[in-house]
Amino acid sequence: MARLQLLLSLRWGDMDAYRHVNNVEVVRLLEEARVRAFGIASPDGAAPMLATGMVVAKHTVEYLRPLDYRLEPVAVDLWIGRIGGASFEVDYEIREPEDEALVYARARTVCVSYDFAAGRPRRLDPDERARLTALGA
Amino acid sequence: MARLQLLLSLRWGDMDAYRHVNNVEVVRLLEEARVRAFGIASPDGAAPMLATGMVVAKHTVEYLRPLDYRLEPVAVDLWIGRIGGASFEVDYEIREPEDEALVYARARTVCVSYDFAAGRPRRLDPDERARLTALGA
Amino acid sequence: MARLQLLLSLRWGDMDAYRHVNNVEVVRLLEEARVRAFGIASPDGAAPMLATGMVVAKHTVEYLRPLDYRLEPVAVDLWIGRIGGASFEVDYEIREPEDEALVYARARTVCVSYDFAAGRPRRLDPDERARLTALGA
Amino acid sequence: MARLQLLLSLRWGDMDAYRHVNNVEVVRLLEEARVRAFGIASPDGAAPMLATGMVVAKHTVEYLRPLDYRLEPVAVDLWIGRIGGASFEVDYEIREPEDEALVYARARTVCVSYDFAAGRPRRLDPDERARLTALGA
Repeated sequence: MARLQLLLSLRWGDMDAYRHVNNVEVVRLLEEARVRAFGIASPDGAAPMLATGMVVAKHTVEYLRPLDYRLEPVAVDLWIGRIGGASFEVDYEIREPEDEALVYARARTVCVSYDFAAGRPRRLDPDERARLTALGA
Repeated sequence: MARLQLLLSLRWGDMDAYRHVNNVEVVRLLEEARVRAFGIASPDGAAPMLATGMVVAKHTVEYLRPLDYRLEPVAVDLWIGRIGGASFEVDYEIREPEDEALVYARARTVCVSYDFAAGRPRRLDPDERARLTALGA
Repeated sequence: MARLQLLLSLRWGDMDAYRHVNNVEVVRLLEEARVRAFGIASPDGAAPMLATGMVVAKHTVEYLRPLDYRLEPVAVDLWIGRIGGASFEVDYEIREPEDEALVYARARTVCVSYDFAAGRPRRLDPDERARLTALGA
Repeated sequence: MARLQLLLSLRWGDMDAYRHVNNVEVVRLLEEARVRAFGIASPDGAAPMLATGMVVAKHTVEYLRPLDYRLEPVAVDLWIGRIGGASFEVDYEIREPEDEALVYARARTVCVSYDFAAGRPRRLDPDERARLTALGA
């Protein structure tokens, strides 16, 4: 079990007219967690892996309870699900940092490794597979 | 078959550092389509139904090809899937207005009718069911 | 007098917890107007001038009355103020399309022409000056 | 001299197609600093003052150098300028936390105390004036 946990700050502007964090901004938090998780996972502190060749193919997001703005960060737990030839699943829970049972949202993103120069998907290289496997559930 | 079609304008700011419309902003477009679809569906031109008692329970979004910023609007086709006692599915395609086959994203949102005063889901009333059924696939 | 008028759609998500269009999203509308104005001003329909070499140096935005979300677009009137060697002012009014006196916000942006390859400001070329002068108050 | 300093995290999504933090998102950072500053300034840890009765009347933002996305927070220094009967100025610098001279943006916001129930500006009460004066330059 190799979950990463990111602590992310909310912004007042994440709220919508219902005065809760808007469902779209929850997807923004997932993006930020993904970017930071792959950055932290990098052994050499290099630019986040996602910045150099991944695209989002699919999101599934379940909203379990309202998330309200507050000054304290929320936790995004993140781990890797299935790894394919040119894709992998990122699984997440957005939850209360001090209470594992208080989960605001569960989500999964299918990421595809992508060669932007060639304009097409590319196979994950061995280094990437090793780093992803290390984050597997 | 009773699809609604909304024509929505993109914003330059929808692009991210990859110079495509960001995947999170695609979810923002779905929100805007949903709000406008329920407004248009209202027989009396009243405030959008979604503004007065629905919450998003789940999103599934598949990104099929990059969507680039342009001055012309994109089309969001929208129809209603399964209708439950207190919930219903909204299905969408974001596509080129003049080319039905050029689809950028497919998505589904599970919406739950919600009593904000009581703080809990509520059953869809007959009027709402009739209006939703009229938008069924 | 050569004002341009852009009609821009609001998004439900532009509202904040106060249920008005958020002041930050008003600045987003100015960006969209600016991008579209320079695109429309281009005689050949080329990519917007702003996309190829301008940066924002300064914004001044006065909020005159609350702007509420609605399905109908708002008008952004836009004209060019002072033109310098490497900069120019864009002046705007966000207002009701059918009522010139109903102004929601007034703003000015100082734009600097910029050479991204060299990483420094560059002088406006004669074509750009002519196009900007044609939009002068 | 009573500056407050907020450390705020950037988000990858703050970048625009130029790969810098977008000028509109800089205004979002100012909002977040303002909300947090008034929350922190509250002696009793109550909800941020801005959430219960202030509106933005005017922003002036100068962009001094490009701000790039990074994992580390940026500093927003914040202090109070002129205090009027029903308004006050918030002055800010967005800068490098460890280098006072590395300033990305300078800004000023005119805030008006507002009675949302009555729909009009209201005078600052003595407590608010005292708290604001304590944050004066």
